[in-house]
Amino acid sequence: MEQVNQVTTKEKIDLVTGGSVTTPKGFSAGGLHCGIRKQKLDLGWLYSDVPAQAAGVYTTNVFQAAPLKVTQESIAKENKLQALIVNSGVANACTGEQGLKDAYEMRESFAKAMGIPEYLTAVASTGLIGEPLPMAKIQNGIERVHDQENKETSRFETAILTTDTREKGVAVQVEIDGKLISIGGVAKGSGMIHPNMATMLSFITTDAEVDDQALTAALKEITNKSFNMITVDGDTSTNDMVLVMANGKAQNKALTENHPEWLLFVNALSVVCELLAKEIARDGEGASKLIEVQVRGANSDEAAQAISKSIISSNLVKTAIHGADANWGRVITAIGYSGQQLDPNKVNISLGPIAVVKQGVPFAFDEEKAKTYLLQDTVVIHAELGDGEGSAAAWGCDLSYEYVRINASYRT
Amino acid sequence: MEQVNQVTTKEKIDLVTGGSVTTPKGFSAGGLHCGIRKQKLDLGWLYSDVPAQAAGVYTTNVFQAAPLKVTQESIAKENKLQALIVNSGVANACTGEQGLKDAYEMRESFAKAMGIPEYLTAVASTGLIGEPLPMAKIQNGIERVHDQENKETSRFETAILTTDTREKGVAVQVEIDGKLISIGGVAKGSGMIHPNMATMLSFITTDAEVDDQALTAALKEITNKSFNMITVDGDTSTNDMVLVMANGKAQNKALTENHPEWLLFVNALSVVCELLAKEIARDGEGASKLIEVQVRGANSDEAAQAISKSIISSNLVKTAIHGADANWGRVITAIGYSGQQLDPNKVNISLGPIAVVKQGVPFAFDEEKAKTYLLQDTVVIHAELGDGEGSAAAWGCDLSYEYVRINASYRT
Repeated sequence: MEQVNQVTTKEKIDLVTGGSVTTPKGFSAGGLHCGIRKQKLDLGWLYSDVPAQAAGVYTTNVFQAAPLKVTQESIAKENKLQALIVNSGVANACTGEQGLKDAYEMRESFAKAMGIPEYLTAVASTGLIGEPLPMAKIQNGIERVHDQENKETSRFETAILTTDTREKGVAVQVEIDGKLISIGGVAKGSGMIHPNMATMLSFITTDAEVDDQALTAALKEITNKSFNMITVDGDTSTNDMVLVMANGKAQNKALTENHPEWLLFVNALSVVCELLAKEIARDGEGASKLIEVQVRGANSDEAAQAISKSIISSNLVKTAIHGADANWGRVITAIGYSGQQLDPNKVNISLGPIAVVKQGVPFAFDEEKAKTYLLQDTVVIHAELGDGEGSAAAWGCDLSYEYVRINASYRT
Repeated sequence: MEQVNQVTTKEKIDLVTGGSVTTPKGFSAGGLHCGIRKQKLDLGWLYSDVPAQAAGVYTTNVFQAAPLKVTQESIAKENKLQALIVNSGVANACTGEQGLKDAYEMRESFAKAMGIPEYLTAVASTGLIGEPLPMAKIQNGIERVHDQENKETSRFETAILTTDTREKGVAVQVEIDGKLISIGGVAKGSGMIHPNMATMLSFITTDAEVDDQALTAALKEITNKSFNMITVDGDTSTNDMVLVMANGKAQNKALTENHPEWLLFVNALSVVCELLAKEIARDGEGASKLIEVQVRGANSDEAAQAISKSIISSNLVKTAIHGADANWGRVITAIGYSGQQLDPNKVNISLGPIAVVKQGVPFAFDEEKAKTYLLQDTVVIHAELGDGEGSAAAWGCDLSYEYVRINASYRT
């Protein structure tokens, strides 16, 4: 997470060096190896000393995996969670009746081990599609969640990973009602391999006291501007899920939309989600760099979102950036097929500080300078449409030989 | 075009070996090198002895290139065309006022050379975005369209290509009103490189007499089921265009929707468009094979189209097929995020003859047999949704290292 410190934080929001889901008061986490995967940690959990207000967003994929159904059922009861358990290696997706039964059993055993009701317990899985959960291994793992050597936040961060090349954890702090509030989060990336290591997962914690309805609304809105604005290969997995838990340990007055510092809290939560989203994009399969698209001057935020996603999803843009090629024609083409109405003669495009298109026609630029810019490990594409006040950002990564190798050759 | 003979033709529709746009009576074509490209032919034309009923479909990209505007203006006058001229190398897209002026001038000069009115003349361009048309070279080329050595259909087929690896021409014949009717077509592929060799172009000819309104409606419908169902990289270019010309030389009774053999004509036109669409997909940048997706049992044809496009556009499916990996989880995932409602428990999937998913859960199959099948040069993915009568087909190609190489390294 070394990139975190380079990011401009919003006023009053402090990044916590080395922060994660246990930076907020009252949260603990751990991880262990239960044998689903050969050597890597494969079972992780997160626990709050007290029941926390909870909210979730879930994949829109029709083949929603069993653990998501069980987790939604838990949260539906009282909008609360106290603990969650995650396995990697097997996704428990496309597993029919047995899969649902296994997810319930995983929830039941873990709830029992933690001494909490099942409805305060969430489950998540990520890994192979179509394989049954190895329940004996998971049961064996659950028996060891209280072993002291497993209780370490970094072990939780590791246990949820699949093809990710690194852990993704972050935390920020803000002052609300004169109290120090922490918000932390972890994530795993969204590549899908071996053969279907699916899933973007993120778990967010805060010790703020937050009204459950307000928390649900905020998470949904923020997810749309962060996790839903990243793409690695455009494939939405069966297991994607973001959960947030707010345990109130900071003892602020309950945050609602009417609280005078509500916006500060939302901004802090946004920073956490945006940082994690960027880390996922940067760590996309085969990625050598982060691509950020900034669209401004669209006729609405929704139009700006559609256009920024069109650009970030283009294989031709992704390969051009991989080759450090200032190929603006591909950017303009992607804008043009986004399905949004706009005036081609008002479009300006720049690559970082280098203007390449003005008023819809090419603008002479220094090829060498452009190449130098595109060789950096973060590339920002700016599109200004001159058509209104709508804006959006999207994040992705370049498309490399390595992407094809990872995804074409797994069984061979 | 050796694949043509392997395709099952519909009853009464005969493929013409070596057929092309000049198989129908009264059409001639040619091509030459005017110097836009280093060595390849770069200027081609097609001519009908008499004015022909004409119809066109055009890119939906907002940055529609100048020649498409001029061609639409020509056809708008009387729904007729007698000739068209195409250059490769420069797309005349994102070229502002000058681009429009150049496209008009290209039309004017070519019309004059052929001795026909401008409104019976179409223009098309494909190649670099953002470069002005080199008008002196084009004028010089137009002066040589009557030179005998340039009058050859295969020279037309070659002159319209950019990164294509081979010419794409096809023709079929049917009997209507006791008259032999021919329909021919050529196409160029849809990869976008160097830096923006855009564009899917196709030109269809027939000597049938066809009502202009019926022709327009048929072309639109057929395009939606053929050219619009292929994807190489999902990028819709600024210059895509399909034109059809029907010159009536076969002397059948004018074909309208009420003609007893209308459906036979539509089927024959469909065969031409589908064969060309498949050839474009097979010749996608870096492609080593054609992928065909067949969706059946959807709740509507539209749903089936959306699902088949979702599968064929998935980078993960495309890389799996490239690696001959029977990775059905990626197919089911792409079905799931297509945005269509369906019952996951009714879905069957097979790869060619090999069933891999039944009723939404994995079905045991022989990995070796699957691999052998996936190594063939055409791979068919069948998805049966058990949800209705809707069906659709889509075509694409695998995603290879070569795709990344072509698109990442052009300027380096």
